[in-house]
Amino acid sequence: MTRVDLNSDLGESFGPWPMGDDVAMLSIVTSANIACGFHAGDPAGILAVLKGAARLGVSVGAHVGYRDLVGFGRRNMDPSSEELVGDTIYQIGALQGLAKVAGTRVSYVKPHGALYNTIAHDKRQAADVIAAIKAVDPSLVLMALSGAPIVEQARSAGLTVVCEAFADRAYNANGSLVSRRLPNSVIHDPELVASRMLRLVREGRITAIDGTAIELEAHSICVHGDTPAAVSIARAVRDALVQNGLELKSFIHG
Amino acid sequence: MTRVDLNSDLGESFGPWPMGDDVAMLSIVTSANIACGFHAGDPAGILAVLKGAARLGVSVGAHVGYRDLVGFGRRNMDPSSEELVGDTIYQIGALQGLAKVAGTRVSYVKPHGALYNTIAHDKRQAADVIAAIKAVDPSLVLMALSGAPIVEQARSAGLTVVCEAFADRAYNANGSLVSRRLPNSVIHDPELVASRMLRLVREGRITAIDGTAIELEAHSICVHGDTPAAVSIARAVRDALVQNGLELKSFIHG
Amino acid sequence: MTRVDLNSDLGESFGPWPMGDDVAMLSIVTSANIACGFHAGDPAGILAVLKGAARLGVSVGAHVGYRDLVGFGRRNMDPSSEELVGDTIYQIGALQGLAKVAGTRVSYVKPHGALYNTIAHDKRQAADVIAAIKAVDPSLVLMALSGAPIVEQARSAGLTVVCEAFADRAYNANGSLVSRRLPNSVIHDPELVASRMLRLVREGRITAIDGTAIELEAHSICVHGDTPAAVSIARAVRDALVQNGLELKSFIHG
Amino acid sequence: MTRVDLNSDLGESFGPWPMGDDVAMLSIVTSANIACGFHAGDPAGILAVLKGAARLGVSVGAHVGYRDLVGFGRRNMDPSSEELVGDTIYQIGALQGLAKVAGTRVSYVKPHGALYNTIAHDKRQAADVIAAIKAVDPSLVLMALSGAPIVEQARSAGLTVVCEAFADRAYNANGSLVSRRLPNSVIHDPELVASRMLRLVREGRITAIDGTAIELEAHSICVHGDTPAAVSIARAVRDALVQNGLELKSFIHG
Repeated sequence: MTRVDLNSDLGESFGPWPMGDDVAMLSIVTSANIACGFHAGDPAGILAVLKGAARLGVSVGAHVGYRDLVGFGRRNMDPSSEELVGDTIYQIGALQGLAKVAGTRVSYVKPHGALYNTIAHDKRQAADVIAAIKAVDPSLVLMALSGAPIVEQARSAGLTVVCEAFADRAYNANGSLVSRRLPNSVIHDPELVASRMLRLVREGRITAIDGTAIELEAHSICVHGDTPAAVSIARAVRDALVQNGLELKSFIHG
Repeated sequence: MTRVDLNSDLGESFGPWPMGDDVAMLSIVTSANIACGFHAGDPAGILAVLKGAARLGVSVGAHVGYRDLVGFGRRNMDPSSEELVGDTIYQIGALQGLAKVAGTRVSYVKPHGALYNTIAHDKRQAADVIAAIKAVDPSLVLMALSGAPIVEQARSAGLTVVCEAFADRAYNANGSLVSRRLPNSVIHDPELVASRMLRLVREGRITAIDGTAIELEAHSICVHGDTPAAVSIARAVRDALVQNGLELKSFIHG
Repeated sequence: MTRVDLNSDLGESFGPWPMGDDVAMLSIVTSANIACGFHAGDPAGILAVLKGAARLGVSVGAHVGYRDLVGFGRRNMDPSSEELVGDTIYQIGALQGLAKVAGTRVSYVKPHGALYNTIAHDKRQAADVIAAIKAVDPSLVLMALSGAPIVEQARSAGLTVVCEAFADRAYNANGSLVSRRLPNSVIHDPELVASRMLRLVREGRITAIDGTAIELEAHSICVHGDTPAAVSIARAVRDALVQNGLELKSFIHG
Repeated sequence: MTRVDLNSDLGESFGPWPMGDDVAMLSIVTSANIACGFHAGDPAGILAVLKGAARLGVSVGAHVGYRDLVGFGRRNMDPSSEELVGDTIYQIGALQGLAKVAGTRVSYVKPHGALYNTIAHDKRQAADVIAAIKAVDPSLVLMALSGAPIVEQARSAGLTVVCEAFADRAYNANGSLVSRRLPNSVIHDPELVASRMLRLVREGRITAIDGTAIELEAHSICVHGDTPAAVSIARAVRDALVQNGLELKSFIHG
């Protein structure tokens, strides 16, 4: 593997409230997970980000979430299948409409927050999201947590799945993420983050929190842009990868 | 003219709150203005109505509105152009996504409530809605109030416009609707409603509230379905038109 | 025991969408659980119901819920303690403000839907709701599910708790409600409902679904008013209780 | 006049989105206009600000707004009287509940954004807000735009009114604010802002944009805290006033 995708969550401002430095991040990533209005994002702001992505050739993914603005889609919910299927289609469709106007298109779907974490292992909600994506456009790629049950579930259902690793997160020996509630779950040193990702892309391996080297499927690396420090880390990861001869490119164009 | 379109607002339930008899109305109308979630409509409910429209061959329009659920999009607002353009695209796109899944497509746009009334004469907001429609898909038809300034504004901008008359409303001699605050503004007698519409379709004329006959461009007739009585009137209008030899057909298929 | 309270959920209309026959129910119940705007209810509609309750001497309870309009507060959520405490206080305060204007006051709190069911057994969320109630006004009564762990938890915390039984629901032998997903979980015969409640009030016992008689603490009986049939059942329960010599009176005035 | 009140809008964060530096501003102002959830503010965040205000002895006002989160209450709307009265009571009540828990109380009401500007001159909406305030608690003070018609309207209705001036805004010769769309409408120089306010407090006069000195009733001065620069200006105004021997004190404690 000599190329890799960098993705980040963008378009998460809402009305008068800004979030993150979308302009800076669009110059760093190759794929933008763009909020669709349910956990964050208002249409005018989303459209502005989509225009930036179109201009810079950054791939666009629908960052669909639970309908929970005040909780930013980070609270667990148990929508019915009818609700979850409908909400997913609605959000993808809305982003497709805005993307078309911006001169680009939605290429993939990356669920957000609690929905992302829930469908990683919850078969029913995962099936709803998968069914919704297939119904809208079966060529849409699903971006999912590397190693999670949904990867196989979605592939069995016929979707193309791109597995992602989290640049600044520690991993357990079984390939799962170390809970944010535990010490050392988040890695703050840009150098360390970059070297870990470099190894992951080259060797398909990463050092787990217990020191063992584990295998991880990772076609995309998730970086954050919600704080100035996060943007710096994202840029450091990008620079380290490029300087070591890797090609940063969206999986969509591959 | 030997044919006419019948349209009605559908999909306006929200979560636990039903509104109207969508199933009955789908068997009456030829075009369904379907709520897009901003003034009414939740994705699961919208999808169900779209499936019914697809099954019965009823044309689908995006019933876009102001972002005002509690006010049902009936309160005047002054969104910026960025907001109104974005909100309009977002709603159309969301409905397009759901429509595709339901096996149909969005053919036209009919703004709702306060937005409908405002853009009838407000050049700036009208321009925003027109620009949004053109940006999403210039082949989308705009359904607008017969005789209102927006009709010419939208045609000049290149959109196809379908003018509609309101079955149960009285008209002033200048072609505008009699305000609901005035007496006799709403006609409740199904027979009278039907005969007025029959004349309108055949002759292009309708009797104004002062007794004069006025000319009105009307390719579509709007009927309501929000109460059992409204459904009865809608059916009476349909039956009267059909029994008098008129063909009911969506303008889309013409 | 010669008296009992009848309660029902009111004020659950929202904007253009009506729900239930609040006027009819206010003439049947002695306590009104009034929506506070998070799962249902808009301020103008809530105020109208409060004025009716004030006029008829019906006690008022804050029917607080999760912030989930489209899901009507029926979907499980996991708000943080800060969120749940804040949301509970906010809703109670809002209702207190409206109640004062209507000439009445909030006497008790009955959580709604998924929040009601969750705190019945979830110690953490229960503790948040209890803490919020105590912080606003420790004299507020908590209405809770008879037999659930929260009853003892709230009493230990110093709150007065009123236990309620559900008029139209079947009970398991252990005192819990038969799941709505199982057959015969809901009793539709008004006569049967009334006779069961009569026995419950008189003897403190009810026949469980397996035929055994179980003891149940019930100071209040919950009836529904969301459909015409529900209103009829509620009235039948009321009439049967009165005709058998029981006094219907709010626990607040006792 | 030897004392004056400094007020600012606080509590306008929402869910994951911060706004302003509430902690810094609480150490600068003597009165805090706290968002009530309709244009901004979530209960947990509002409660935290209220606790800070209680700790520092800062007076609390209900910063009620139109129900328009995405538009931040800055878009004109035309709610019915029932809606506006209900919404105003609801917001005040919610803040009262949270304030009580925080160990303080709501002393005044300052409408926000488009509602503030509209009721300054719109008699009907002004009457609705005045009626709502009187119904909740006639001892609540209304903070309003100096010189606007609402000042007399509210006083005639029996409310105590505190007039405010805007520290960083230019005034027309007739006492109205220079529109933000015009050049020089906002004054950015902290020194100039401070000297203007000092003169206003001492002499009751301010230099209008045409150079004339006009009289202005100003019991409170509004400062902003939504950006670091704004906080600096607010602090400069405070320091200049104090260094010149003025006492900063809430009108409530006067």
